[in-house]
Amino acid sequence: MSRRAPALEQTESAGGRDACAPAPPTNTAGPPPGGAAPAPSGVSPVIGTTAPAPSAFDKITPRRYVRYFTFAQDEPFVLESGEALQPVTIAYETYGRLSPARDNAILIAHALTGDSHCARHGPDDPEEGWWEPLVGPGRVFDTDKYFIVCSNVIGGCQGSTGPATVCPVSGRPYGSRFPVVTIGDMVRAQARLTDYLGIDRWLAVAGGSMGGMQVLEWGVRFPHRVRGLIPIAAPARSYPQAIAYNEVGRQAIMADPAWQGGDYYGGPGPVRGLATARMLGMITYQSDASMLRKFGRDIIPSRADRPYTLAKLFEVESYLEYQGKKLVDRFDANSYLYLTRALDLFDVARGYGSLAEALQRIQCPVLVVGVSSDILYPVYQQHEIVSTLRSLGKPVQYAEIDSPHGHDGFLIDFHMMEPPLARFLASLS
Amino acid sequence: MSRRAPALEQTESAGGRDACAPAPPTNTAGPPPGGAAPAPSGVSPVIGTTAPAPSAFDKITPRRYVRYFTFAQDEPFVLESGEALQPVTIAYETYGRLSPARDNAILIAHALTGDSHCARHGPDDPEEGWWEPLVGPGRVFDTDKYFIVCSNVIGGCQGSTGPATVCPVSGRPYGSRFPVVTIGDMVRAQARLTDYLGIDRWLAVAGGSMGGMQVLEWGVRFPHRVRGLIPIAAPARSYPQAIAYNEVGRQAIMADPAWQGGDYYGGPGPVRGLATARMLGMITYQSDASMLRKFGRDIIPSRADRPYTLAKLFEVESYLEYQGKKLVDRFDANSYLYLTRALDLFDVARGYGSLAEALQRIQCPVLVVGVSSDILYPVYQQHEIVSTLRSLGKPVQYAEIDSPHGHDGFLIDFHMMEPPLARFLASLS
Repeated sequence: MSRRAPALEQTESAGGRDACAPAPPTNTAGPPPGGAAPAPSGVSPVIGTTAPAPSAFDKITPRRYVRYFTFAQDEPFVLESGEALQPVTIAYETYGRLSPARDNAILIAHALTGDSHCARHGPDDPEEGWWEPLVGPGRVFDTDKYFIVCSNVIGGCQGSTGPATVCPVSGRPYGSRFPVVTIGDMVRAQARLTDYLGIDRWLAVAGGSMGGMQVLEWGVRFPHRVRGLIPIAAPARSYPQAIAYNEVGRQAIMADPAWQGGDYYGGPGPVRGLATARMLGMITYQSDASMLRKFGRDIIPSRADRPYTLAKLFEVESYLEYQGKKLVDRFDANSYLYLTRALDLFDVARGYGSLAEALQRIQCPVLVVGVSSDILYPVYQQHEIVSTLRSLGKPVQYAEIDSPHGHDGFLIDFHMMEPPLARFLASLS
Repeated sequence: MSRRAPALEQTESAGGRDACAPAPPTNTAGPPPGGAAPAPSGVSPVIGTTAPAPSAFDKITPRRYVRYFTFAQDEPFVLESGEALQPVTIAYETYGRLSPARDNAILIAHALTGDSHCARHGPDDPEEGWWEPLVGPGRVFDTDKYFIVCSNVIGGCQGSTGPATVCPVSGRPYGSRFPVVTIGDMVRAQARLTDYLGIDRWLAVAGGSMGGMQVLEWGVRFPHRVRGLIPIAAPARSYPQAIAYNEVGRQAIMADPAWQGGDYYGGPGPVRGLATARMLGMITYQSDASMLRKFGRDIIPSRADRPYTLAKLFEVESYLEYQGKKLVDRFDANSYLYLTRALDLFDVARGYGSLAEALQRIQCPVLVVGVSSDILYPVYQQHEIVSTLRSLGKPVQYAEIDSPHGHDGFLIDFHMMEPPLARFLASLS
């Protein structure tokens, strides 16, 4: 374990990278967000913003607009577990400009396999973001009005410190020696980024799924640093069925001999195990109704006249296989293990005696959003948050997206999310 | 492929077994069912009833009361796919006595990992059956009144011909060379057993899950051989979500290097892959509510003070691990592959143009049973059967078990199933 590592003078040290670690992308010096002036203008001198966490994960998506903030260089960042990381890098992207009063900043938190790229930065930015229709000029998260920040969680694999990061002490990727991080740890790391950006209070923190968990943690851990919370398709704690699905996915990864106890960097890695985990994930992100509508019992054309096979036969199988392979091309299996464990461990009430005692700490309006057909975090789990906040007399609104798309609704049904989100954001300004 | 194999004089041939194949258990000569006289008394001379299908699966549960019927010794048994098996053995158990009029026989069909042992045969029979509380003297399936037959499906691994069976042509276990069987093939094989037992018409055919699919096939394929049908927690066709779950399970098995393309007999086999598949299956057999009630977010005691781990942590994980390991001790991974594929392929309307045209063939009363919290075959799928039968003017009753146990309700909520089952059976007699 690398915790309590001796302080390093520099985040990036040639000696701190081993043969498994490719050179990190050098996009730190890219143009500022949106082609505009550097967003966090006037903030404290850029310290620590150097480069991505040196990573052995060779599938980091190259992106011009990603920036990096590194902290805990001199003092370890102590995690909820008591273990520590030193240093910690956060990859982030910003959209729009921070107002002189610094009161228009919104943090967007991503889900399990998301990253800092929630939207395009302009016409010269080819890659759609995971919340593309919601973030941009004139959109709900209006980049003409708001300063949007989206960062890759710690434990992730797209530029922030995670299990693929090269441990500065050993010079090898952490792998399974990476400490377990929690949703609370992710948020505490984001708070350090918030300090660095010179933002005292977020106008809002918003996110779906694992992002929604981070939103709740923000409200409970940093009640005076948020003016509005938008947790979407997220529970106040992980329930056993969701934990069970995660565990099956982890078993699929760890059973893959190419996982090698987590030390697979430089080799192919557990691509088959990760694909299987993703296939299962994709089922839980959808719904019986949406799968029926999309696939029915359709058979792939090449099998139409010989359906008696154990091999891929139905369109739904072909779709899952495709989704599994796609994830493998952009996600690190160890991050999948660590982030799903963070999901399991999530209980916003931890340390506060009860959910009511935890949510009592929230000092701002909350918009809770649920998706009617969500089987992963069913709406009763959002109702629990709403009813607890109501019983405490907290200002809370609830919007239920009436969609057949299941959990993925928060990444699909933008037109249904826009009205309640727009109204809520307008009420905060 | 072994289909269209030359006819064999004998089912069992020493030369037809290879080194992987243990000697089959010799329980054919065990005492007759229930300690009573041989049940199918007066039927045609016992031909072909010899021994289990010679099997390379070394975890066949030794059972005194299992009997074997072998057919297709001289003529191949042609499957829906056009491929064939020769010979075919069916392991079965019987309870109670066939009446002189041969009008009291009930066939019980098992689910995915079930077998012929639906209940104990008496006090000297130590092993509980999978429908124990429903089958026996004075129980709903009253063995003082009815002659109960329960057989292991073809494709299975508990005595009937399946992928672990030693192919009489090659002398090696079929493995992946076993032909794909369908629910219809299982039922057509059961019809051969029915002939052999001298039963013209079943008083009823009953079963849950995959067993319920067999029930529907009986009604549609052999409408004049059944007087009552009890499909429980089963659909008229597999929908894509259920296919998707099966596919993830299969991928977990086939990704296990110990699967070896299906030729793993004599070695450990894909125990880890099968366990993972089972873990996933267990989630789909339960419900969010039942898992919440059973496990909550409880942590296993040994981890209580150090929960920050990727290793087994929550009670629900421990439970799944246990269930996975348990299945591995009694089930053959190749059978898991073939039987889940049979589930996927199941569409009782196949070949009939529409569900209505298929169900139009049914000539007897039907009791459809659903479990309110079933997430694998949700009640709308039973409603579809009921409404189609009603629209055709067929005599159909529907009973919904109001249970939190999910799909497994048909193996748990006996007290709720008993009244409708008892009424329905009484109405048939």
